[in-house]
Amino acid sequence: LKGGLTGIAYELVQTPDNGLPLLNPMSEVAGKLSVLNGAYFLLSQNGGRGVLLGGTVGVLPRRVAILGAGIAGRAACEIALGMGADVTILDVNVNQLEKIRLEFGNGPKRRLSNPTMLQRECERADLVIGAVLIPGAAAPKLITEEIVKSMKKGSVIIDISIDQGGCTETMRPTSLEEPVFEKHGVIHYGVCNMPAQTPRTSTQALTSATLPYILKIASNGIQETLKNDAILRAAVNTRDGKLTNRAVAESLNLAYTPVEECI
Amino acid sequence: LKGGLTGIAYELVQTPDNGLPLLNPMSEVAGKLSVLNGAYFLLSQNGGRGVLLGGTVGVLPRRVAILGAGIAGRAACEIALGMGADVTILDVNVNQLEKIRLEFGNGPKRRLSNPTMLQRECERADLVIGAVLIPGAAAPKLITEEIVKSMKKGSVIIDISIDQGGCTETMRPTSLEEPVFEKHGVIHYGVCNMPAQTPRTSTQALTSATLPYILKIASNGIQETLKNDAILRAAVNTRDGKLTNRAVAESLNLAYTPVEECI
Amino acid sequence: LKGGLTGIAYELVQTPDNGLPLLNPMSEVAGKLSVLNGAYFLLSQNGGRGVLLGGTVGVLPRRVAILGAGIAGRAACEIALGMGADVTILDVNVNQLEKIRLEFGNGPKRRLSNPTMLQRECERADLVIGAVLIPGAAAPKLITEEIVKSMKKGSVIIDISIDQGGCTETMRPTSLEEPVFEKHGVIHYGVCNMPAQTPRTSTQALTSATLPYILKIASNGIQETLKNDAILRAAVNTRDGKLTNRAVAESLNLAYTPVEECI
Amino acid sequence: LKGGLTGIAYELVQTPDNGLPLLNPMSEVAGKLSVLNGAYFLLSQNGGRGVLLGGTVGVLPRRVAILGAGIAGRAACEIALGMGADVTILDVNVNQLEKIRLEFGNGPKRRLSNPTMLQRECERADLVIGAVLIPGAAAPKLITEEIVKSMKKGSVIIDISIDQGGCTETMRPTSLEEPVFEKHGVIHYGVCNMPAQTPRTSTQALTSATLPYILKIASNGIQETLKNDAILRAAVNTRDGKLTNRAVAESLNLAYTPVEECI
Amino acid sequence: LKGGLTGIAYELVQTPDNGLPLLNPMSEVAGKLSVLNGAYFLLSQNGGRGVLLGGTVGVLPRRVAILGAGIAGRAACEIALGMGADVTILDVNVNQLEKIRLEFGNGPKRRLSNPTMLQRECERADLVIGAVLIPGAAAPKLITEEIVKSMKKGSVIIDISIDQGGCTETMRPTSLEEPVFEKHGVIHYGVCNMPAQTPRTSTQALTSATLPYILKIASNGIQETLKNDAILRAAVNTRDGKLTNRAVAESLNLAYTPVEECI
Amino acid sequence: LKGGLTGIAYELVQTPDNGLPLLNPMSEVAGKLSVLNGAYFLLSQNGGRGVLLGGTVGVLPRRVAILGAGIAGRAACEIALGMGADVTILDVNVNQLEKIRLEFGNGPKRRLSNPTMLQRECERADLVIGAVLIPGAAAPKLITEEIVKSMKKGSVIIDISIDQGGCTETMRPTSLEEPVFEKHGVIHYGVCNMPAQTPRTSTQALTSATLPYILKIASNGIQETLKNDAILRAAVNTRDGKLTNRAVAESLNLAYTPVEECI
Repeated sequence: LKGGLTGIAYELVQTPDNGLPLLNPMSEVAGKLSVLNGAYFLLSQNGGRGVLLGGTVGVLPRRVAILGAGIAGRAACEIALGMGADVTILDVNVNQLEKIRLEFGNGPKRRLSNPTMLQRECERADLVIGAVLIPGAAAPKLITEEIVKSMKKGSVIIDISIDQGGCTETMRPTSLEEPVFEKHGVIHYGVCNMPAQTPRTSTQALTSATLPYILKIASNGIQETLKNDAILRAAVNTRDGKLTNRAVAESLNLAYTPVEECI
Repeated sequence: LKGGLTGIAYELVQTPDNGLPLLNPMSEVAGKLSVLNGAYFLLSQNGGRGVLLGGTVGVLPRRVAILGAGIAGRAACEIALGMGADVTILDVNVNQLEKIRLEFGNGPKRRLSNPTMLQRECERADLVIGAVLIPGAAAPKLITEEIVKSMKKGSVIIDISIDQGGCTETMRPTSLEEPVFEKHGVIHYGVCNMPAQTPRTSTQALTSATLPYILKIASNGIQETLKNDAILRAAVNTRDGKLTNRAVAESLNLAYTPVEECI
Repeated sequence: LKGGLTGIAYELVQTPDNGLPLLNPMSEVAGKLSVLNGAYFLLSQNGGRGVLLGGTVGVLPRRVAILGAGIAGRAACEIALGMGADVTILDVNVNQLEKIRLEFGNGPKRRLSNPTMLQRECERADLVIGAVLIPGAAAPKLITEEIVKSMKKGSVIIDISIDQGGCTETMRPTSLEEPVFEKHGVIHYGVCNMPAQTPRTSTQALTSATLPYILKIASNGIQETLKNDAILRAAVNTRDGKLTNRAVAESLNLAYTPVEECI
Repeated sequence: LKGGLTGIAYELVQTPDNGLPLLNPMSEVAGKLSVLNGAYFLLSQNGGRGVLLGGTVGVLPRRVAILGAGIAGRAACEIALGMGADVTILDVNVNQLEKIRLEFGNGPKRRLSNPTMLQRECERADLVIGAVLIPGAAAPKLITEEIVKSMKKGSVIIDISIDQGGCTETMRPTSLEEPVFEKHGVIHYGVCNMPAQTPRTSTQALTSATLPYILKIASNGIQETLKNDAILRAAVNTRDGKLTNRAVAESLNLAYTPVEECI
Repeated sequence: LKGGLTGIAYELVQTPDNGLPLLNPMSEVAGKLSVLNGAYFLLSQNGGRGVLLGGTVGVLPRRVAILGAGIAGRAACEIALGMGADVTILDVNVNQLEKIRLEFGNGPKRRLSNPTMLQRECERADLVIGAVLIPGAAAPKLITEEIVKSMKKGSVIIDISIDQGGCTETMRPTSLEEPVFEKHGVIHYGVCNMPAQTPRTSTQALTSATLPYILKIASNGIQETLKNDAILRAAVNTRDGKLTNRAVAESLNLAYTPVEECI
Repeated sequence: LKGGLTGIAYELVQTPDNGLPLLNPMSEVAGKLSVLNGAYFLLSQNGGRGVLLGGTVGVLPRRVAILGAGIAGRAACEIALGMGADVTILDVNVNQLEKIRLEFGNGPKRRLSNPTMLQRECERADLVIGAVLIPGAAAPKLITEEIVKSMKKGSVIIDISIDQGGCTETMRPTSLEEPVFEKHGVIHYGVCNMPAQTPRTSTQALTSATLPYILKIASNGIQETLKNDAILRAAVNTRDGKLTNRAVAESLNLAYTPVEECI
């Protein structure tokens, strides 16, 4: 605010259909990484059950339960299927489940989520992926301590929603140095900012996504761009020393100025 | 020999079409684990290039080169494709490459292997899987030190053939405690007995494969079985205190008795 | 024999790789029909559990267990997968299971068969297909009465091997007029000669398969053909009033003449 | 009305994009059942042509014509393809046909429907599925008596739209006890309420779909829910002894009260 | 205008979601033809590099770069993948790339387009398809002369957007008699109105698309139709001797009458 | 012979399973080129019917009939399916048809070939591919003049077997300069040595295939190689001034020496 910076927030750039073009790439990366990490921590030297997700000849594939069929959940589903797992994906929204079928056919099992289903699927799974992201809100604690207690020894929970507080009652944030801890016999993985594990891929993805906006600003100037582009305008947090994000202003008890007055 | 044990060697049980029914399950497990481990060590916290095998929206998939299209190579191919990688598989035998096409269509690129091709594919790859297994012989050193030097910094070599000495000039056996080391900027993974990472899956697979033989012996007795079953008979190493494996006898300078004389 | 007929038996025409070119088409038809009939008798008006094999949005697919991965089992697998079921196929021969993977990828679960596995899969299945055909021998009674008792009420067993006595202890042959009966709460389907349900398809398939042999005989005459074609020669049952099938001769206590003496 | 019941009609719960979340599951079940029943009545013991939908080695697959590419038609398409049939799907709306391509690729043939095309496809088909549902209106009689006369002897028509009067001129409603009748040599199947054949699957599907609405009412009370939820409010037929559905009021000549006045 | 004709322009019939139902079929045909022609001119007798798009056993597939993921680009992608090529598709719109993934999975590589990427992909490609169509505007010159100079000798550019001026700096319109010319060693293909190559397919496609509109006019009369159908009304260019297309009126300096005044 | 050359014939290098490793790559290239050329000559400017093989939205795909399911026929099938055509493949050998199903599933229709089927499929096809190669013998004239007369005007026949005389009664060899001629309204394509159209791909494919043999000779010397390698030995045509191919010797009336006497 002091420097008079015009600050545009990635997480507020939102298309009319509620898309988040600058956050989606990182959700997709996190979803893919969740299965890779989950499969790795299922190995016995890492404390896991000592199983291969896809099984092998004469050995059934292992069950993976994915909670949430959004960007991250879909990406997790792709990789889990690709590794040969027996995948079930749960969501409260039947339309999201239909999208899963459109993309993957009858490969993954699809379930409308409710507490009974959740309990049943987690009990049977070797790997549970928490991909329940509610934009701008804390994730609901869907995986209760009771559910965790009912899970198999050496099974793994990867909680992608840890950045919003996590959807697992027994989870806490962990670091890349010590990514997992064990509770009730279940391996908990709560690494924040998962895409930091693949900086090269993540940076390319983010850069690809932001480049069109940056080119626009570079070509037309910031004043002109904000005047004409409602999407970028709505994402301005600070401009000309004024705070233009009402939520931030209220939570920090600072003065709020509508962005329109700063252009 | 002293105890008069009848010893049947898993690795000598061979079907008429040169199949190795008791070794194949472990080769398949190793092949699948090779890609999982390779993808994991490509993460930046593990010293790798910090890339996601399958890329993501706006970011190309990474290249995986698989040397050898046998049981292990095929299994590696399945998982690498499943994770969305850009896979090339090399073999000197065109029939093996045809089998890959039959199973995976045009998904993986297929190349007849020769030193020039090998060099080119390793240079471009982020992950190289050495799956060159010549039964009963040391693996040839296909990945020379020069090739390793030409590879990208932070790329990964997984040498499944390390149990037969490895197909990488710069590789040495490593352990689960310290699975990788770095040389010429390339991460080397030379863990022996890879299927030990998934004991549950591996044991089930081995048990499924051996059960028919064990049931046969249990039903008919060992004497009767060896008399009638040429496959098991050829796999006998010791019987009645006699050594029935010529190669072992010669290398240990012990007396050799043909198995037929012990039945 | 009295008429001096030259009789060639379809079931004895056998290629060097043990193929049965004149029986396979009917096995394939039977395998496909088994799933169609099974799905139909699972409907509630037919006494079944009232379930749809493939499930629907929010409802999991139902389990189908197929015993035997030969011609009929493979065909059943194709249709069951096509209808969206959750398919497990069991066989004692790992090579047959590998063929299933080559054709269908990770779609169907594959299991090496043994009594424990059989019990487990039948208990969980809504539809069990018995496709265990041992050429020229009675089918083994794999589905014991105990297994049947453990199955779900309203589940269905289709026993394709009924023509060789059936592989289900509680099965008996049934007719198209009364195709099913109930025992221990399980619907039993033991219709013999299943391909008779699709005479048009079956006749075309058989005709296609036999035509090359018939053209050969028509072009070269029967004497010349039998002299030169070892496959047809080995399938001759009667010629010139003599019985040339040793097994039939012995079981009927008639004189046996080697076919070579009749040419 | 006398009991003062608040009645919410399933068929009036409609999302802003014209989706019918409580009817769709039953349409999907009916679509899947239509192919199963069609394949079954094509068997010769049931009066059909005696053909297998998917054909077999050396025998071409049979043609299935699906009229309408909505929820039911799409589901019928999935099962018909899965059984190996040669499927053509017709619709007047090119966007619906594009969705079919997105999901099934070039598997099914797609045709913009008009009387000439309809005639041609029905003539050639062994199985015709009528899946033409116009919400809240009688189905158009697309399959005229003339078309039926031109069809092959023993072919089958399944008219899913019978619940809205049927799209076949020669069809009449039938029952599960006597599901089919023959006219002009063609088997007519006009069973109403097809999902009743799989009560277990249908109930689970309906329950999954209604649960979110029921939970909402249970949590917030009916008065509060109707005030805030426009979708449920628009589906109220009766409340506080008043009739709130104008169409019903008019057709029964009763007094109509807008639902807004009852909240 | 003199004859008082009511003229409706195909290219102005536009659905609310910006779809162009009467132009799309021709874009799809052009996209499919672009790959066929490209593959043909890559043959050595036609001056091309003498390569097979899909490669063959032991020979890698060739690269195809498709610029634009709209109707034409998607269709080109389908055929290029079908011929076994190594396809990259570029677009500035990430949503278009996501649609490509939904339909084709990880088959084609997807790239957000920018000048660097464009340069890189064209350099490596054997076949470049220009499918950049901006409705009602000249195509941008994405493939600069510099890019063309950097391409391989004997590679091929097919510029579908030639009808809007082309997206290749070095392209000029060509004819079916002389479809290609060579510049900087690269074969240029600039045939206008590509769908004229398949008149039978194109006519059927156009007729299918226009039939519903024509039937509407034929049933209701033109006056009534224009009154009620906003889509057709907006596409009227001339009526009752008046010019109702503002853009045409302005560019020809004629009087403009709003269509509403002519109904 | 005068120069004392050791001549090894590509076409005589044959593996124990009757494989022709040095001819197969060219058969595959020819098969793929046959569909590309066929699709190109179906365009109206080339005299064809003016149709797109794969059809488009609202227009059915066109029929392609492939005669022979060997190496070339399979390759043609792959490309024709990839272009979206409605493919039927015919062969007299049911095993070859089964291989087609294993690779392509129910995509192509499969037919046991006989004159009636041939007639029917050619009549309905827009493109007929003759891929009937009998090693070392003239191709049978399966496509009779009568069949050609019954085909549609503007349809195309590509006769890959022209190098062995062709399988079409009305075909004659053509050149790349004038690849096609018209007879009975059907476009005939009889270009010999089709792989010459893609010299780069063909050379790479041949080189890949021959390299292992050349390396063997280069490492061990020709004398040593011929002594130990039965496959190469059987392919020797001339050595030490002697003619070692009996068939050639007889047809040229020259003295024949068994190769074994020249080593």
